[in-house]
Amino acid sequence: METKNILIEKGILITTNKDESIETIKNTSLLIENDEIVEISNKIPKNGVDKIIDGKNKIIMPSIVNTHTHASMSLFRGLADDLELNSWLNNYIWPMESELDGEIAYTGAILSHIEMIKSGTTTFNDMYFFMESVGDATIDSGIRGCLSCGMIDFGEKKRRKNEIKSAIELLKYCKGKDRLKGFLGPHSPITASEELLLESRKIANKYGVGLHIHVNETIKESDNVLSTKNMRSFQYLENIGFLNEDVIAAHCVWLSDAEIDIIKKHDIKVSYNPASNMKLSSGVAPIHKLLEKKVSVSLGTDGSASNNNLDMFEEIKIGSLLQKVHTSNPKALNAEEAFKLITINGAKALGLENDIGSIEVGKKADIILFDTLSPNLTPNSNSLISHLIYSGNGSNVDTTICNGEILMENKQLKILNEKEIIEKANLISQKLKNSY
Amino acid sequence: METKNILIEKGILITTNKDESIETIKNTSLLIENDEIVEISNKIPKNGVDKIIDGKNKIIMPSIVNTHTHASMSLFRGLADDLELNSWLNNYIWPMESELDGEIAYTGAILSHIEMIKSGTTTFNDMYFFMESVGDATIDSGIRGCLSCGMIDFGEKKRRKNEIKSAIELLKYCKGKDRLKGFLGPHSPITASEELLLESRKIANKYGVGLHIHVNETIKESDNVLSTKNMRSFQYLENIGFLNEDVIAAHCVWLSDAEIDIIKKHDIKVSYNPASNMKLSSGVAPIHKLLEKKVSVSLGTDGSASNNNLDMFEEIKIGSLLQKVHTSNPKALNAEEAFKLITINGAKALGLENDIGSIEVGKKADIILFDTLSPNLTPNSNSLISHLIYSGNGSNVDTTICNGEILMENKQLKILNEKEIIEKANLISQKLKNSY
Repeated sequence: METKNILIEKGILITTNKDESIETIKNTSLLIENDEIVEISNKIPKNGVDKIIDGKNKIIMPSIVNTHTHASMSLFRGLADDLELNSWLNNYIWPMESELDGEIAYTGAILSHIEMIKSGTTTFNDMYFFMESVGDATIDSGIRGCLSCGMIDFGEKKRRKNEIKSAIELLKYCKGKDRLKGFLGPHSPITASEELLLESRKIANKYGVGLHIHVNETIKESDNVLSTKNMRSFQYLENIGFLNEDVIAAHCVWLSDAEIDIIKKHDIKVSYNPASNMKLSSGVAPIHKLLEKKVSVSLGTDGSASNNNLDMFEEIKIGSLLQKVHTSNPKALNAEEAFKLITINGAKALGLENDIGSIEVGKKADIILFDTLSPNLTPNSNSLISHLIYSGNGSNVDTTICNGEILMENKQLKILNEKEIIEKANLISQKLKNSY
Repeated sequence: METKNILIEKGILITTNKDESIETIKNTSLLIENDEIVEISNKIPKNGVDKIIDGKNKIIMPSIVNTHTHASMSLFRGLADDLELNSWLNNYIWPMESELDGEIAYTGAILSHIEMIKSGTTTFNDMYFFMESVGDATIDSGIRGCLSCGMIDFGEKKRRKNEIKSAIELLKYCKGKDRLKGFLGPHSPITASEELLLESRKIANKYGVGLHIHVNETIKESDNVLSTKNMRSFQYLENIGFLNEDVIAAHCVWLSDAEIDIIKKHDIKVSYNPASNMKLSSGVAPIHKLLEKKVSVSLGTDGSASNNNLDMFEEIKIGSLLQKVHTSNPKALNAEEAFKLITINGAKALGLENDIGSIEVGKKADIILFDTLSPNLTPNSNSLISHLIYSGNGSNVDTTICNGEILMENKQLKILNEKEIIEKANLISQKLKNSY
């Protein structure tokens, strides 16, 4: 029988208010009814509640939103490291990807979902192939997914037609499904032709969905657009009418000031992917400048082949530290800004800010708990937000709730069978390696 | 009754060979007798063994060596972040440090030891105050400590005399104690006068101990030496006869090519502290250049007030990624080099390479186990060293052994009482905050 009510009793609530201030309120209880938060108070009666979670010494905060992933790529983790991007792609990743099928994509995705749930992420924004299989994995794992087919045509009409067909099928597949949201995913201004970009914009408008695209990940990519279009990438995208507030642009490492102004003007959502950008030595995104201009920046891990994990707490620490050292400013991307990047800004990036990203009555119950009685979160009299951003990591997450459903409690997964999924992933990965 | 023999049965051994190659050998067993590794083979009989640890699906590797810490500063974690170094020191850290006593230093140190044991570190190189209390904590926690009093005189004779007195007392305290090693700790070429540096060298020679010093952490410090001594820091240290292979120099962020040559010439051991250098925006140490010149580089976390944790797996990932993005070279500080930094190079830095840092018959049993059946270490058919460096973190450590004693097994601490120590640390930290 399904639990209808959950009471999280007397924990330390940390959340972002509507005015963008961050609040830490001790001794706070939350009542969840079905998928929603229905009450926040320090005196919620216990009677009639189906399930009580003791919040003592626990931080209660919104679940994490990862705004740029390729979840199925977890199977390529550790396959090829310490390589240049081209060699990494041409000699390892692309040959492996040519062997993919729905079962493989499902297995890689659900392996990623275990990592996400264990480290407090319950919403991910994914672009890849065989996305209906990724959707099936998302349904099975209990988390939220924004899903897009990564569309690449390199200007070939036939390829474009096929890509668009798959993309529309995915939108139809997602429609009406509770925790899924379809996106359009033209891969990048290099790999997707102008026609494909425009067609994507048209379909996005028709279906009322957002667009997820890679922009200026490397200087090579940025230079490529400049030499072929005689404009920088965001000028080109603006020029053809692609840009709107429903666009989430991943990476954005190489940005001119004029491009930053365009991003601000169209309220483009930027997904910062620091670990992947560092590992592939792509560069350092000017997040400090974007935040100064009040651009909406969120955080993503990218795929596990270039990160190599999905721990958003590790990612935000790396991301904050990188901004500090790169700008010679220890105040850059401070702990409070960092907290917003991984919660409310992620929700805004995906058009989900009315549902998730903060803890408010009427929002969905996407909530995680941290046990503060951990050595790396001690002393508890110092800043808990600082502990979360600079000292904690995903392994400190104790309980993960998505859409009112407990996916992990006391570090034990409640729905997924971790051992079985890991064994399946090991088998499939070995098979893939043998065949390519 | 103490266990005399431990058999770790049939795991995946990863260690550095004498020729510096790294080896991964499946299906390997280890026999530990008292504090030593006595046999490595795939067929060690079980009979007569007091304790068997199942190595199935486990990585067996040397314990981690953290070569630059201020362990007691864990009590200042999250006290003051997102600040410039001067404000951080003058307004927060130094006022708090003036309140320290032996009990506080002990509590902070043993809180750090829990973090270390849980994340696979069993040797730390510490410089601070009340170091005999840190020594007591090290004895109680079962790990290894290289301990030095941080000596600061700012040229004052009386202060110098007192600092030297405490330092010699610490050397005497450490002498003959099994897991402790005394070091001399002149704080830096700025905070320690030439007289103090020379006196330290003399005492180090007399007692046969090494020297632990901060050098060129910030450009300000490096410029300060240049303007007062008319030489760069390592030229100055060479000039006065301070340098020798027994010197471990922390940070080394700002190095000229001439200084790198001096470091190489005297076989100075460099401790790379990337997270702290990033967080305080001190800069990026030229580790890539040092490794090219075959300088011995190890890794340290610095104190928890500027990191903010002691997880050496997180630290090495950050350190490797930082080198890659800073040099625009994805091959910089690759996974195999990184593995050595945190194991054998750490041992060499502390003059412990005959005892620890690799798994060999005759060496001390300082060993950790990783459970590969974790989502972030899957698939197991890809590179396990890459998994350790780029995807794993301290929370993946399953079992920690130091000097033949099991300090943690199946993620459960065996000697220390985690809950009690955290509660004590919370109490003391609150008291400190109230008093300063």
